[in-house]
Amino acid sequence: MAETTTLKKFESIFPKLVEDVLDHAKTYKLPEEFVSWYKASLNSNTIGGKCNRGMSVPDSVSMLREAPLSEKEYFETATLGWMTELLQSFFLVSDDIMDSSKTRRGQPCWYLQPHVGMVSINDAFMLESAIYVLLKKYFRQHPAYVDLMELFHETTFQTELGQLCDLLTAPEDKVNLDNFSLTKYEFIVIYKTAWYSFYLPVALALHHQNIATPKNLKQAEKILIPLGTYFQVQDDYLDNFGLPEHIGKIGTDILDNKCSWLVNKALEIVTPEQRKILEDNYGQKDATKEAAVKKLYDELNVEKIYQDYEKKAVGEIKAKIANLDESEGLKKSVFDSFLSKIYKRTK
Amino acid sequence: MAETTTLKKFESIFPKLVEDVLDHAKTYKLPEEFVSWYKASLNSNTIGGKCNRGMSVPDSVSMLREAPLSEKEYFETATLGWMTELLQSFFLVSDDIMDSSKTRRGQPCWYLQPHVGMVSINDAFMLESAIYVLLKKYFRQHPAYVDLMELFHETTFQTELGQLCDLLTAPEDKVNLDNFSLTKYEFIVIYKTAWYSFYLPVALALHHQNIATPKNLKQAEKILIPLGTYFQVQDDYLDNFGLPEHIGKIGTDILDNKCSWLVNKALEIVTPEQRKILEDNYGQKDATKEAAVKKLYDELNVEKIYQDYEKKAVGEIKAKIANLDESEGLKKSVFDSFLSKIYKRTK
Repeated sequence: MAETTTLKKFESIFPKLVEDVLDHAKTYKLPEEFVSWYKASLNSNTIGGKCNRGMSVPDSVSMLREAPLSEKEYFETATLGWMTELLQSFFLVSDDIMDSSKTRRGQPCWYLQPHVGMVSINDAFMLESAIYVLLKKYFRQHPAYVDLMELFHETTFQTELGQLCDLLTAPEDKVNLDNFSLTKYEFIVIYKTAWYSFYLPVALALHHQNIATPKNLKQAEKILIPLGTYFQVQDDYLDNFGLPEHIGKIGTDILDNKCSWLVNKALEIVTPEQRKILEDNYGQKDATKEAAVKKLYDELNVEKIYQDYEKKAVGEIKAKIANLDESEGLKKSVFDSFLSKIYKRTK
Repeated sequence: MAETTTLKKFESIFPKLVEDVLDHAKTYKLPEEFVSWYKASLNSNTIGGKCNRGMSVPDSVSMLREAPLSEKEYFETATLGWMTELLQSFFLVSDDIMDSSKTRRGQPCWYLQPHVGMVSINDAFMLESAIYVLLKKYFRQHPAYVDLMELFHETTFQTELGQLCDLLTAPEDKVNLDNFSLTKYEFIVIYKTAWYSFYLPVALALHHQNIATPKNLKQAEKILIPLGTYFQVQDDYLDNFGLPEHIGKIGTDILDNKCSWLVNKALEIVTPEQRKILEDNYGQKDATKEAAVKKLYDELNVEKIYQDYEKKAVGEIKAKIANLDESEGLKKSVFDSFLSKIYKRTK
């Protein structure tokens, strides 16, 4: 029987990985004060999230094996999981600068912390570099070592393409709804989020088990990219329609000129008069204007449109899982597990 | 006989590499406007320098082979050379943001160009990613593929460590000479500059020729790291003592609070009264204060100290080259060529 990890167990691995990375930096005789800085950056920026991406690596491997993991297997797969978290922290530290964000996980963003500032750009690079230090230390002898390096390179590049598209489509300070479209929305969601959050952990699990056959990878992609898209659409939905007491924050997508699924869907069906309402009110830091957009969403019945979308998307994903070919070692349970965590979530 | 490349020939390779990287992005159906953006970033940030680092890859290979390169060999080695230039452009784009620089190669820095701003952080990432796109396309079948990837990872990490140390030691806006020391200076120079500018191109050449034996790599390192250090010390010397009409710019290291070799050397030998002059005048945007520091350098005879340093450093490097063991295919001429470009340069 497969076993599911806990955040506590997963987090217990990280200090050893920090030590490994710092030990490597110390072989270069890096002066002590800079070792401390790097340590603080690794800890502050990588710990403290839900670690859903990272934990899904050991969980997926356990489901592929249909057995609990040995201590050694857990350490290895959790290490791969932490690499996905390091990749994410590299993105988040830099995204926060690019988006002029103020807080992250309830703390001031790293670049806003005392004495950090623009050094955070280099800190972001060093979070990325930590991935390859760990990969070399623990997987140089693994048959999939080259594939693992290429997978991280490719996923990094994909996410950067998504971020580029997002930044140029929806700059926070310049509203132009002509920029938006569902095509661009889909590109941004798939590239900026779905590859690294959904495909990467499962691909890592398959490589770890040496069953990353072209067929298995393609099957995983065909389910996980739509699943990741659904996840982000749902996130956009919850930003407006979720209960703040459930999602733990008050949505700000309308105020922030976000290229959200809701506004793109609305743009598809508005009359010229309704479009004018969006033009006049979207993406401005003004509660009255935000309320006007929310009212329009209600008039357009966007909530119902979402529910229809969700029903269809989930139906298609379930059908693909049902039709999955397990002959090369991939398991339906891996995807059932992802879907069950997402479907009908309220936070 | 070995053949030396020209900038024109080297630059003629780059458009094909840009096309390769963009073709890869297009396989993801990246919308056209973002392909154009990426193209502009690749061209603006990578072309326009002297390309000494990049050109030294084909030149070194030609010297290792003691023969002119075939067209295919030239393309491959120039491609590796362009990867070192991409790595540098990744660093320069981001360094310019971190240092609040204004111009680069006679143009406004990329982040200051119209409509770019903080998107440049992501652009820097995408310059780095281009390295691995090209490495995979052209070297996946090469016996040294893994070593090449690891070499780029390691060199990137080393340069980031150097940049971290530089940023924290000499923030432009906060002068504290207690932070400076020749030990830190040397760390910064070796890690921020020498590894990627001197060691990397020769290590790439050795890998390309499949003669990157531990012995050859170690011999190259033992010469190129001191050579790179000497190069940077000389750069610092020229910033103050070089003729603006030779070096093509007016030095600003004193004004910019740079952790320069000159100030570190001065700090070693100052009396308490002279140190006070440095404390009061170094690192401030004020021509009179700058002049006071320059006057102190003259009183301390720093120019002579530099000349003694140069004589000693060059003597040691020449001795190492003379004693080089060529039995595993490394050639003295590779290092003679580097040294002859640097020794007694005036720009």
